[in-house]
Amino acid sequence: MAEAIGEGARSVEGVEVVLVPIGEVNPQDLLNAQAILVGSPVYNGNIAPAVQEFINSWPFEGRPMKDKLGAAFVTGGGISIGEEGVMFDILRAMLIHGMLVIGGEEVEAAFGASAITGEGPFKAEKIDPIFLAKGLGLGKRVAQKVLILNQSKK
Amino acid sequence: MAEAIGEGARSVEGVEVVLVPIGEVNPQDLLNAQAILVGSPVYNGNIAPAVQEFINSWPFEGRPMKDKLGAAFVTGGGISIGEEGVMFDILRAMLIHGMLVIGGEEVEAAFGASAITGEGPFKAEKIDPIFLAKGLGLGKRVAQKVLILNQSKK
Amino acid sequence: MAEAIGEGARSVEGVEVVLVPIGEVNPQDLLNAQAILVGSPVYNGNIAPAVQEFINSWPFEGRPMKDKLGAAFVTGGGISIGEEGVMFDILRAMLIHGMLVIGGEEVEAAFGASAITGEGPFKAEKIDPIFLAKGLGLGKRVAQKVLILNQSKK
Amino acid sequence: MAEAIGEGARSVEGVEVVLVPIGEVNPQDLLNAQAILVGSPVYNGNIAPAVQEFINSWPFEGRPMKDKLGAAFVTGGGISIGEEGVMFDILRAMLIHGMLVIGGEEVEAAFGASAITGEGPFKAEKIDPIFLAKGLGLGKRVAQKVLILNQSKK
Repeated sequence: MAEAIGEGARSVEGVEVVLVPIGEVNPQDLLNAQAILVGSPVYNGNIAPAVQEFINSWPFEGRPMKDKLGAAFVTGGGISIGEEGVMFDILRAMLIHGMLVIGGEEVEAAFGASAITGEGPFKAEKIDPIFLAKGLGLGKRVAQKVLILNQSKK
Repeated sequence: MAEAIGEGARSVEGVEVVLVPIGEVNPQDLLNAQAILVGSPVYNGNIAPAVQEFINSWPFEGRPMKDKLGAAFVTGGGISIGEEGVMFDILRAMLIHGMLVIGGEEVEAAFGASAITGEGPFKAEKIDPIFLAKGLGLGKRVAQKVLILNQSKK
Repeated sequence: MAEAIGEGARSVEGVEVVLVPIGEVNPQDLLNAQAILVGSPVYNGNIAPAVQEFINSWPFEGRPMKDKLGAAFVTGGGISIGEEGVMFDILRAMLIHGMLVIGGEEVEAAFGASAITGEGPFKAEKIDPIFLAKGLGLGKRVAQKVLILNQSKK
Repeated sequence: MAEAIGEGARSVEGVEVVLVPIGEVNPQDLLNAQAILVGSPVYNGNIAPAVQEFINSWPFEGRPMKDKLGAAFVTGGGISIGEEGVMFDILRAMLIHGMLVIGGEEVEAAFGASAITGEGPFKAEKIDPIFLAKGLGLGKRVAQKVLILNQSKK
C-alpha cells in the first residue's frame, strides 16, 4: 500500500517523495516534510503500538508540525473491524499536532486509503487492485495539494 | 439485513423477536424489550437523521433503557467510509442510555453487523452472503445473551 | 460559540464572514465559501439530526465541496459524553465531501471548538470563557488559512 | 482514578477486586476475571502504546475473553482532545475480543470514567472529585453487573 501511495505521489511533477519504514525516519526529514502520510495495520481494532509510538516521538514543543498536511492509510484483516478506527486514530493524532487533514481522491477513500486482506473476496496474498487504486489516488492528491500550498508561499 | 438478524434471533428458542420499521415502533414495546438492535444506512459517513431522531425519542427520564442489551447494524455503499462510524454512532447513543453493548458472533462482526452494497465485488442488488451471515450471527448472539440474562432474574 | 468563531474569523483582514442558522443557508453561499464551519449540540452522544440533514443537503454531484476547508464546533452538556463524537461526526461528513479538515489554534481545540454547559464548574448560563477562546481561535485560524490558500490561486 | 474504581467495585459485597499495573497482570487472572476495566492516559489523542500492547497480549485463540464484561477509564490533559477517542479505542479492542461493553453509573460517565487534569479549573495535582465520582460509580456498576451475571450461571 505504501508503494502505491508513493507511486501516486511521484506521478506529480515537482514533489519529492520519501518512503521510510517508521523505525528509520530521520527527525529532520519529518520537520522538512510538507505532508506526512502515516500507515498502520489494524490490531484489535486499533493502531499498531509501534506506529503510535512513532507519532508520539514527533517534535511537539513549539508545534513544528502545525499546518503540515496529514493523511492516513491502513491495512486490516476484516471489513469494518477497525480500518476506520485506525485511520481516525492517526488523523486524531495529526490534528493534535495541528496538521491539516486530507483524504483520498475518491469518496471510497474519503478518510484515507484502506485495504482489506483477510475476508471474503479479499484473501489473496496481494492487496486487491481496488485498494491499491485508493493508495495511488491518495498519494497523488496529497502531492498535488503540496504543490498548491507551495505556490502560496512564493 | 434486518431480516437476517431476525432470523438469527428467532433461531433461539424462548425469545420473542419483533422486527419494526423505526417509524412504527410502539414505545411500550421499546420499554418491554430486553435487547434492541438498531440499524442505519450510511449517509455522508454518518447515521441517517431519521434513525438518530428515533433514538432521541426513546424515554430518558429515570433512564428506563438502562441495562438493556444494545447492538448495531449498518449498510454502506463503500468499504470503510462510514460503516464503523455509524455503528459507533449507534453504540454511543446506547451507552448514553446506559445500555450494555454487544457485537456479533464472529470477529468480523465485532462492532455489529455491517454490509457493503456498492463497491468492488459488492455491487449486486442482494446483500452478499458474507454480510448476511454477520446479521444472522448477531441476532443469534443477542438472543442467546437475553436468555442468559433472564435466567439471572429468576 | 458561533459568535465567538465569527469574531475570530472577522479579526482577520481580507476575509468575508457569514454567520447563518443552518435552516437559512443559501446554497450558492455554500458553493462560494472557501471554508465552512459547522456546529451542533450533542444529543445522545451524537450530532443533532437537523445538522446532519443540513450536511446531507449539500451538493454532492461533481463534488463541488471538494478542497474547501472544514472545521467543527460543538456544545455538550457533560464532559466527554459526545463532544468528540460529534466533532468527528461532522469532520467525517466533511471528509466524505472531500474537504480539508482543520482544528483550532490551541492543542485544547485540536478537533474543533468544544464547550461544556452542564457539568461541574461549567453550569453557568453563559459559555465559559475558556470555551469561547477556543471558538475565537478556531475562527481566526480558519480565516488565516483561507487567506493563504487564496494567495496560491493568484 | 484506578483506586476510585477499585473502591467502587469493592463496595459491592461478593465480588473480588484486583488492581494491577498493566505490566504485572497475571495471564491466569485475566482468564479468571469476569470483568476487566482498562485505563489509559491520553497521548496525542490516542491510547498509550503500552496499554494497547497489553490488550494485544490478551489470549485470542478460541476467544477466551468472549462474554466478559469490559469498561474503560481515561485521564487526559485537556477537555475533549482525546478522552472519548481513547475510551473508544479501548472499547473497540474489547469488542474485537467479544466482550460486553458497559459504561458508568451516571450519564456523565456513559462511555467510561474520564478525568481532565490539565485545563481550566482542572489543574490541581489531585483528580477533581467530579471525576473520582465517575470512577467510583463505574467500579460499582461493573461489580453489580458481575454479581447478576453470576446468578445466571447457577
